[in-house]
Amino acid sequence: MPSGVAEWIAQPSDILLFGATGDLAGRKLYPALYCLFRDGHLPGGCRILGLARTDQSAAEFTAIIHAKLQEFAPEGEYEAAVWERFSAALDYTPLDVHDPEAFVAVAERLGDRSGRPLIHYLSTSPSLYGAICAGLDHAGLAGAQARVVIEKPIGTDLASSRVINDAVDAVFPEASIYRIDHYLGKETVQNLLALRFANGIFEPRWNSAGVDHVQVTVSETVGVEGRWGYYDDSGAMRDMVQNHILQLVSLVAMEPPASLDPDAVRDEKVKVLRALRPIRDRDIESSTVRGQYRAGAIDGKAVPGYLEEPGCKPGSRTETFVALRAEIDNWRWAGVPFYLRTGKRMPHRYSEIVVQFRDVPHDLFAPENADVQANKLVIRLQPQEGIQLQMMYKVRGLGGGMKLQKAELNLSTEDFKPPRNAYERLLFDVVRGNQTLFVRRDEVEVAWRWVDDIMQAWQSETSAPKHYSAGTWGPTSAIALAERNGHSWHE
Amino acid sequence: MPSGVAEWIAQPSDILLFGATGDLAGRKLYPALYCLFRDGHLPGGCRILGLARTDQSAAEFTAIIHAKLQEFAPEGEYEAAVWERFSAALDYTPLDVHDPEAFVAVAERLGDRSGRPLIHYLSTSPSLYGAICAGLDHAGLAGAQARVVIEKPIGTDLASSRVINDAVDAVFPEASIYRIDHYLGKETVQNLLALRFANGIFEPRWNSAGVDHVQVTVSETVGVEGRWGYYDDSGAMRDMVQNHILQLVSLVAMEPPASLDPDAVRDEKVKVLRALRPIRDRDIESSTVRGQYRAGAIDGKAVPGYLEEPGCKPGSRTETFVALRAEIDNWRWAGVPFYLRTGKRMPHRYSEIVVQFRDVPHDLFAPENADVQANKLVIRLQPQEGIQLQMMYKVRGLGGGMKLQKAELNLSTEDFKPPRNAYERLLFDVVRGNQTLFVRRDEVEVAWRWVDDIMQAWQSETSAPKHYSAGTWGPTSAIALAERNGHSWHE
Repeated sequence: MPSGVAEWIAQPSDILLFGATGDLAGRKLYPALYCLFRDGHLPGGCRILGLARTDQSAAEFTAIIHAKLQEFAPEGEYEAAVWERFSAALDYTPLDVHDPEAFVAVAERLGDRSGRPLIHYLSTSPSLYGAICAGLDHAGLAGAQARVVIEKPIGTDLASSRVINDAVDAVFPEASIYRIDHYLGKETVQNLLALRFANGIFEPRWNSAGVDHVQVTVSETVGVEGRWGYYDDSGAMRDMVQNHILQLVSLVAMEPPASLDPDAVRDEKVKVLRALRPIRDRDIESSTVRGQYRAGAIDGKAVPGYLEEPGCKPGSRTETFVALRAEIDNWRWAGVPFYLRTGKRMPHRYSEIVVQFRDVPHDLFAPENADVQANKLVIRLQPQEGIQLQMMYKVRGLGGGMKLQKAELNLSTEDFKPPRNAYERLLFDVVRGNQTLFVRRDEVEVAWRWVDDIMQAWQSETSAPKHYSAGTWGPTSAIALAERNGHSWHE
Repeated sequence: MPSGVAEWIAQPSDILLFGATGDLAGRKLYPALYCLFRDGHLPGGCRILGLARTDQSAAEFTAIIHAKLQEFAPEGEYEAAVWERFSAALDYTPLDVHDPEAFVAVAERLGDRSGRPLIHYLSTSPSLYGAICAGLDHAGLAGAQARVVIEKPIGTDLASSRVINDAVDAVFPEASIYRIDHYLGKETVQNLLALRFANGIFEPRWNSAGVDHVQVTVSETVGVEGRWGYYDDSGAMRDMVQNHILQLVSLVAMEPPASLDPDAVRDEKVKVLRALRPIRDRDIESSTVRGQYRAGAIDGKAVPGYLEEPGCKPGSRTETFVALRAEIDNWRWAGVPFYLRTGKRMPHRYSEIVVQFRDVPHDLFAPENADVQANKLVIRLQPQEGIQLQMMYKVRGLGGGMKLQKAELNLSTEDFKPPRNAYERLLFDVVRGNQTLFVRRDEVEVAWRWVDDIMQAWQSETSAPKHYSAGTWGPTSAIALAERNGHSWHE
């Protein structure tokens, strides 16, 4: 089996968590590791070494993680007895990542490793990835047994992403690099693969003949959450579209891979990204909308505008909302619009993919039924996970003879549960060495190339983003973007 | 609108129910009329005149119907106040159907009808249809305003069915003849039309490229229920296959009609029946199984064999079980087996259609999943009505990475309710003058032609039906019939 499941076997590993005192580590990574440990998915003998600038003892750090776990472990999942065993695997040491010799000290702390796999989770600013990788290399912690996990943002455009990827690539081969997009760790995103490729009924209509259009929405109710400066350097396009939304598009639109092997899947995904029609020149006007929220109300509570948030710089033209009409120039999807939308300060928080199938070619039921609606598949990622198929069926009884009604079917018996911690899944795969749900360098770069065209056009414009009131679905031109083609955003 | 819904308007009618003292009338027809009346679907001013040989007064008869209703109206649906009003519409008069003058007396009893529509429900032996129609004609009760409803068995073969149909046709035009197959009144059978033609997702796979095979099962646990002689003249083929099962096949397999107009639908149905490949000669052996039950047990209770039932004639070769492998020789269904099966003294009572779709062309999930099962649509007619789609989805959680599981989705929010009285729906359509759910003469005859080939071959054989024990799924050769082609009966 060239790259089948059998080789993805977890071995007792040393996990080095850089940025161990950070927000993500406390809220997501340690809780995920705890759950993996509890469920027996971390091989016995794994050690988890936290690393950060903070000068504190392992005991002090472990006490902090203990508190975090009790706060952030999924409800009812914290157990004192499990913690007792888990905490024995935890360690911490302060580290200045710019000091290569400090890495040698880390290697010494790990002691005789006898070829144990090493997992380096870089939960730090991407500007530190280069220094950390160099340090690991210097200390002999980057050999064939080492894997490195890195997080977005990988750059702010194609050029800067190359600098970051080059620095990591200088030390680790692509086969050892795990670029996390936590959307790929979500249950419903993986179920999308099962839905498409383990069932025969959708695929014959999963193309321009059967699909009218696709929508992807990632909406947040929050604003910048006190991190105005950080967000202002990014904006909605870089923060959401370049990574999460384009990853979802590639999974929805890809051809069936020959297997679930990492490169078989990623080859198909990157082909979709490469086939995205560039949006340039006059298409910028017709196919993109950027917005920036003004003061408004969320859930009846007044909230300030983007340019009134603490720490803001007046005159910022950073977009807090993006709507795009994308097209995929390949045989399967020619002429099918993909409407992509994300924003802050929207009325509701949710992420979903909608596959809107075409109408039946001929409506037999029209005389009695004014509204026979085309089938629609709704894949909801959050706040509740689930997949729904919208169908028409006959209303029971005599009224109207053949009166139809819309039904929403849940395509999983376990639908609409609160989402799992996506990092649990992804760390599970890192430990097993399965890259299928991780993003390959070429995917990152092709996505940046497509996004760069749009960003550059926006930057060369003299106009600012369109305004929208907090608590609305973005500028009215975002509605018009879809309506111009006779489509409506699913709500 | 040539034959749209608008013309199917119910007018105050006179309903003549021949065979009013019979079993069907008491258990099904009067309860159905009562429900229609209660729900306002019988126009005010309708009169319901019961006719039978029994010499009794209208009051005596009405008291009997009152008792029947309380026994057979759907649970909780009998209401004294409704009965009060309904019973005012009931009437009864004895009738000798062989006496033409008696029909004149009936006409006189009806009095001045001023062109009111007349509905004649012939719930009698088909041997009386000719006499009744002639009598109605003689008394001027068969004009343009009259409709006649007739029931199976319409003959025991093509030739005898022609005699019966000719006798009715001599008096009524086809457009006034409502041949009831009560299976067409079932909710899920009608929902099959909605499922297929109001949703786009199934039709692209609803053909030989997408469907592996189709199964239709009508199984009963009862034996001959004290009517041995009656059943022995018929047998499972004439009692179930020629009518109910072939009607279901025609609805599953038909091309999309241009409209739901009666003849648009029936034109498509009859095309399916005409395309059924004749089963003759060597195909009799390979594609048909007939069985006759021997003593056995149903639900742990001993039951006698067919040739031990009260009133039996020793040596009868009548089949109480049939299994067929049918094929439809047209573009859509070439090469797709339709397995048809019906029997008495089966382990469970149910009627269902199973559309077994083909496997996905390539299985991505095989290494971790030994049993990725192809999609299957199960349309259950009784004892509970419902439509289920069997799909594969990813099991929530990490176990096995991409572990799949089978889900059974209910394709109607109102699924799996006890079936309605199918006669309510069909009488509703008779009153409105909508023939869509009634069987046209050519359908009856084409079905007989196909059945006759098989029956004649069986009769010319010296062998008897194969034996099966009561409480089993028929002779083992019925299992072999499907297994030979790599298929299994759905259970």
